[in-house]
Amino acid sequence: MSTPRSAKAFVPGHVTGLFTVHRVAEPARSGSRGAGVTLADGVTVQLEPADQRRVLVDGDPMAVDAVDRVLDALDVSASLRIETDLPLGTGFGLSGGMALGAALAANQAFDLARSENELIRIAHVAEVTAGTGLGDVVAQARGGMPLRLEPGAPPHGELDGIPATGRVEFLALGELSTPDILDERPGIITEAGTEALERLRSQPTPARFMEASRSFADDVGLVTPDLRDILEAVSAAGGTASMAMLGETVFALGRDLSDAGFDPAVSAIDRPGATIIE
Amino acid sequence: MSTPRSAKAFVPGHVTGLFTVHRVAEPARSGSRGAGVTLADGVTVQLEPADQRRVLVDGDPMAVDAVDRVLDALDVSASLRIETDLPLGTGFGLSGGMALGAALAANQAFDLARSENELIRIAHVAEVTAGTGLGDVVAQARGGMPLRLEPGAPPHGELDGIPATGRVEFLALGELSTPDILDERPGIITEAGTEALERLRSQPTPARFMEASRSFADDVGLVTPDLRDILEAVSAAGGTASMAMLGETVFALGRDLSDAGFDPAVSAIDRPGATIIE
Repeated sequence: MSTPRSAKAFVPGHVTGLFTVHRVAEPARSGSRGAGVTLADGVTVQLEPADQRRVLVDGDPMAVDAVDRVLDALDVSASLRIETDLPLGTGFGLSGGMALGAALAANQAFDLARSENELIRIAHVAEVTAGTGLGDVVAQARGGMPLRLEPGAPPHGELDGIPATGRVEFLALGELSTPDILDERPGIITEAGTEALERLRSQPTPARFMEASRSFADDVGLVTPDLRDILEAVSAAGGTASMAMLGETVFALGRDLSDAGFDPAVSAIDRPGATIIE
Repeated sequence: MSTPRSAKAFVPGHVTGLFTVHRVAEPARSGSRGAGVTLADGVTVQLEPADQRRVLVDGDPMAVDAVDRVLDALDVSASLRIETDLPLGTGFGLSGGMALGAALAANQAFDLARSENELIRIAHVAEVTAGTGLGDVVAQARGGMPLRLEPGAPPHGELDGIPATGRVEFLALGELSTPDILDERPGIITEAGTEALERLRSQPTPARFMEASRSFADDVGLVTPDLRDILEAVSAAGGTASMAMLGETVFALGRDLSDAGFDPAVSAIDRPGATIIE
């Protein structure tokens, strides 16, 4: 054990296109099947040992339950400066990203000697227990365009990926209340998500991911009128857009939003997945 | 299916520090447990559909058995230009890298709609069947500092990782004959590798990886006199170097070779793992 020092981690944003809900007694085995896309934009977590715990998000003090649970699980006292270029609460998996970034940075700063799978598991359990997400952490750890074949953290969950690179566009309109939706319709979501994932697995390409996400959004009835207008405009222009699960956010690959006349934010498919930064 | 086009993939080099040998009837279940480090230097594979198969490595025609087996398995006819900054045949996992790069690029160029796990499995099976490697492909797909907990390709194998970034130094002296060594002493290798991996898993840090690799190299008796001189000089300078399995190559993290007065080649720990390049 050397002297604690500052450490920094990056975790990609993650937009879920389709998903299922699996809640069991053990949080590490709870989670979600589904598919999504990770983004080159995400969260950076700068962590320093400190007598008093303190979490700043984009400069403002914020209580992030999943982050607190990670620091408790690792038994460290630290000050965190978290920054993101993505909008909070609109379906980019940022609470999971903050939890995973905190775990990676704490491991580095305090020489905790945990493996990557252990840190992913700690962040996943924190996120599930906090009730703020089910499948972002494992996807963010992998990067790319992850397929969540089996729910849960390592060694329970199982991942695959769709080979993909390139531009991602999005328009974030606002928040959707995550817990309400998940509590009210888990059965409908899981039925639609299972079907969409099976279709996608038979032809795992970026184009099919967008189509499966769009069908899923329609099936689960979460598309707000404002979102629907945009999705239909993109379809009319020959593209495919869908809705981030769960936020009032539209996303598309390539230039499908631009080509339909919108002025979207632009990111790219992330490759590396979550990582400490030197 | 759109018109076949050119595609390009990058696969990191992989230096194995310690390993075990598991050969069973099914190549996808054969492989190796162990630990290694992937490098930001590796192989790029540029693939174009062509009537006649052709493989150039750094400009020269070369028969790479594992690459041929990948192209056969995917049933494509293509011309490949493979380039690498790493020395061939000296323990950097380049045949596995070429096989995995060919699989990723062929999937992209011919719109084959295979998932990442399927492409990894095809490359792993090609490499195992060609007899040129057991554990490089799955490690190269992950990136970072991979721990191979269970042998084989997805979904059989199981991976973890040591959180790590930073500089890697190496000195490549020459080739070691891979098949002879593996055929003559698989039992000794697997016993030493199992023990070293268990020690490393109890404290998965970069420093312990180097120590475990060094103990493993001593235990299996593969250290040549030239390698031993370098390893001992690095130890005398307070560092830790070990031997790439399998090549007459010394590697170390940070500046441990430079600090002992050598003039090593310099790379860095790769993060992204194998990926198509736009």
